Amino acid sequence: HHQAQQSAGIIGAPFSRGQPRAGVERGPDLIRSAGLVHRLNQQGCAVKDYGNLTFEEVAGDESLGLMRSVRAVGSANRRLSEAVQKVKRDGHTSVLLGGDHSLAIGSIHGHSALVGNLSVVWVDAHADINTPLTTPTGNIHGQPMSYLLHELQSKIPILPNFSWIKPCVSARDVVYIGLRDVDPGEHCILKLLGVKLFCMTEVDRLGVARVMEETCDYLSAKQKKPIHLSFDIDAIDPSVTPATGTPVVGGLTYREGVYVTEQLCQTGLLSAVDMVEVNPLRAQTERDVQSTVGTAVDLLLGCFGRLREGNHPSDYSLPEP
Amino acid sequence: HHQAQQSAGIIGAPFSRGQPRAGVERGPDLIRSAGLVHRLNQQGCAVKDYGNLTFEEVAGDESLGLMRSVRAVGSANRRLSEAVQKVKRDGHTSVLLGGDHSLAIGSIHGHSALVGNLSVVWVDAHADINTPLTTPTGNIHGQPMSYLLHELQSKIPILPNFSWIKPCVSARDVVYIGLRDVDPGEHCILKLLGVKLFCMTEVDRLGVARVMEETCDYLSAKQKKPIHLSFDIDAIDPSVTPATGTPVVGGLTYREGVYVTEQLCQTGLLSAVDMVEVNPLRAQTERDVQSTVGTAVDLLLGCFGRLREGNHPSDYSLPEP
Amino acid sequence: HHQAQQSAGIIGAPFSRGQPRAGVERGPDLIRSAGLVHRLNQQGCAVKDYGNLTFEEVAGDESLGLMRSVRAVGSANRRLSEAVQKVKRDGHTSVLLGGDHSLAIGSIHGHSALVGNLSVVWVDAHADINTPLTTPTGNIHGQPMSYLLHELQSKIPILPNFSWIKPCVSARDVVYIGLRDVDPGEHCILKLLGVKLFCMTEVDRLGVARVMEETCDYLSAKQKKPIHLSFDIDAIDPSVTPATGTPVVGGLTYREGVYVTEQLCQTGLLSAVDMVEVNPLRAQTERDVQSTVGTAVDLLLGCFGRLREGNHPSDYSLPEP
Ligand SMILES: [Mn+2]
Ligand SMILES: [Mn+2]
Ligand SMILES: [Mn+2]
Ligand SMILES: [Mn+2]
Ligand SMILES: [Mn+2]
Ligand SMILES: [Mn+2]
Repeated sequence: HHQAQQSAGIIGAPFSRGQPRAGVERGPDLIRSAGLVHRLNQQGCAVKDYGNLTFEEVAGDESLGLMRSVRAVGSANRRLSEAVQKVKRDGHTSVLLGGDHSLAIGSIHGHSALVGNLSVVWVDAHADINTPLTTPTGNIHGQPMSYLLHELQSKIPILPNFSWIKPCVSARDVVYIGLRDVDPGEHCILKLLGVKLFCMTEVDRLGVARVMEETCDYLSAKQKKPIHLSFDIDAIDPSVTPATGTPVVGGLTYREGVYVTEQLCQTGLLSAVDMVEVNPLRAQTERDVQSTVGTAVDLLLGCFGRLREGNHPSDYSLPEP
Repeated sequence: HHQAQQSAGIIGAPFSRGQPRAGVERGPDLIRSAGLVHRLNQQGCAVKDYGNLTFEEVAGDESLGLMRSVRAVGSANRRLSEAVQKVKRDGHTSVLLGGDHSLAIGSIHGHSALVGNLSVVWVDAHADINTPLTTPTGNIHGQPMSYLLHELQSKIPILPNFSWIKPCVSARDVVYIGLRDVDPGEHCILKLLGVKLFCMTEVDRLGVARVMEETCDYLSAKQKKPIHLSFDIDAIDPSVTPATGTPVVGGLTYREGVYVTEQLCQTGLLSAVDMVEVNPLRAQTERDVQSTVGTAVDLLLGCFGRLREGNHPSDYSLPEP
Repeated sequence: HHQAQQSAGIIGAPFSRGQPRAGVERGPDLIRSAGLVHRLNQQGCAVKDYGNLTFEEVAGDESLGLMRSVRAVGSANRRLSEAVQKVKRDGHTSVLLGGDHSLAIGSIHGHSALVGNLSVVWVDAHADINTPLTTPTGNIHGQPMSYLLHELQSKIPILPNFSWIKPCVSARDVVYIGLRDVDPGEHCILKLLGVKLFCMTEVDRLGVARVMEETCDYLSAKQKKPIHLSFDIDAIDPSVTPATGTPVVGGLTYREGVYVTEQLCQTGLLSAVDMVEVNPLRAQTERDVQSTVGTAVDLLLGCFGRLREGNHPSDYSLPEP
């Protein structure tokens, strides 16, 4: 199937305050310098690069209990939300290059602000659905889903610079893939809300092909909503993508990751993608960085129609001697 | 399924005479120092650590033909059998930390002495079912199953310090998983006795999910017997668990190994576990040791109810602001 | 199934002119020194080693447009074709140790010259089906299939030292496995001719077991022809076989590769095998070389009846005390 190509609108968000490890702010430039734009163009995908967002220091951003950098996270995501709205207004599939996963707040908020109800496919070792009251760490990159779900609104306290965030996703429109490190509070929430999830045990049981079949069936059983794919690179096994802040053994293979993106692309509903948590300072070798970044690029190419069987222009004519 | 937690009774057996490579006697302390007890406790599993067995030198233990350290192996296993009986008498799920795989003789003997007829799930690259007359190496860690099976009794010569061993397992109650390096004599025995086995070809053909479905069906088709899981770390691929004496390429993935333990745990029949053949001196790097030991711990956690989708106490209440 | 063993006739072809990277000419001796002959003998397979072919310098072999070393490739393959015909005349399963994949021209040509119509199973990251007019590189190791297929004859220009090559394979008798880096012209050809292929997306979707089931069904639906397996080591993932000239991420696992050979062997139709593109100079470490060469050997052992569940002579008698 040679698909109608979508255009990509790329936003870099060199932001790391959703977690404590320096380096993840380098993700956007690293992913770009691995040739993302050129390779998207090569496969026939138009690209507009909106550059990197800038985030000023937020004064007086002291911790609130365990919660760290609340104001900085709130204000960065507000900016990101507006940037995503612009990208969607311009007619592109939005591509957020993180930065840490707290950025999903602004990315999904902005996406939904422009296109309305969304499906969210969250590919991650972690559920990132702690509330400010269940978080064991205070890191907001472990909480973005809790701010976005309608069903959790009563569990979220008032936080500075967070008042602009309106929940915009229904729990029944979310599918998790790749979970293997879920906190007790998160597990309670997931069961309470009946969120559809394929943890690694399910991936092992069903195989990635059936996982994606069930995911796509689940998302299109109701009215077909635009899909927001939020891909945390730590979903992939650390033997492949070690350059990330919270690696967890037993992850998706490179092939499984790429298969996920290929199948989501083929729904024709993919409307925004986050690629987050690439952190070169967490790698032990340059090779580790390259493998992580190269995988991130390949996952993004898969989102925009790359097929491993190859492709040829419809007007290609085979030369004769 | 939040299961009734079983308690774990841990026995360390720093014994290496069933094979020629120094280092495997360090397994018990290494696995403990990777946090086994703490992590079992964390997941709600009570633990009693019975400490390490001590094995005195056995004088005059000269080789008998090819067979090496026969008396030491016989006497160490007698001690282990008694220790396992004590653990079972105390009501725990027995956890043997090896040491080499010759220890399965005492572990299974002791287990059976207390609970009667057993099922045995043997996860290993090797079948460990040579008799003293078929062994190509003389290493008893390649033979434990031959002493334990009723059906092989006529094939076993009299050996010093082995007279206490009574065969206690029926061939039809054994399932092998992960085989890929089987000697001709062993293959003859396996076919002769019609032992149920899933070699790596079968794992590739069926996938681990169906392997475990068939394993559990097979074991519960008859009367449901307590399960003894004997897990040789060399069942897992050497890219993951290189720190072992006889690595063989093409093994189970980390995920497949964990899936095996999760599924056996969910039968509710798991009554004893051996985790053997971790040998730090066979690793090339410290990272190799950590990966091997970490995998051993995760496999044991899987045996005691750890779920990759997470878990929460039944009385957990979601905090509200 | 203890099968009637076939004998292996080994030809080494230390040839590298089908591509630009030095080192691939060392493949035959490396694979031999990893014990191929001994291990084939051990598993009951008779072996005749025909030694290495010698290829003289071809004078005046200047490039023809992009196309490099045309005359050298033509003349080396002519020699190889004759050698393969001799091996088949002597009644062996032919084993070509490359050398680069341009050698498939002579290997398949010679095989077909002696046994007639063939099935070809091409296991490779690449389709190697560019014509001299579609090739983006001019390297003939990316083109062998184009010279061999009846259906492409009109697309092939006249080339020096190539006039002896007569197309001998029908597109409907070819199955590709492992594709993940296919040029646009190649993709156009594959679709135009309706070639059966299992790219990595298909391997992910179906699993290797069903891929081999469908492959064997497809090949035996019509009249059962002798099978020529052309195995490019770059089909396997570069984490396992990095010592090769054009590695591509996301390849077959070691286990998938071995499974392919086991299943083809069990058809009883395997009549010739190429094992090509092992290049020790492309490895970063000696360990990388060993892993690559060891895998090549194991794949060949799989072609000649090795079973991971083990085997024993039909006259084996279990010793009693
Ligand atoms: Mn994560
Ligand atoms: Mn995340
Ligand atoms: Mn073993
Ligand atoms: Mn063993
Ligand atoms: Mn190739
Ligand atoms: Mn090739």
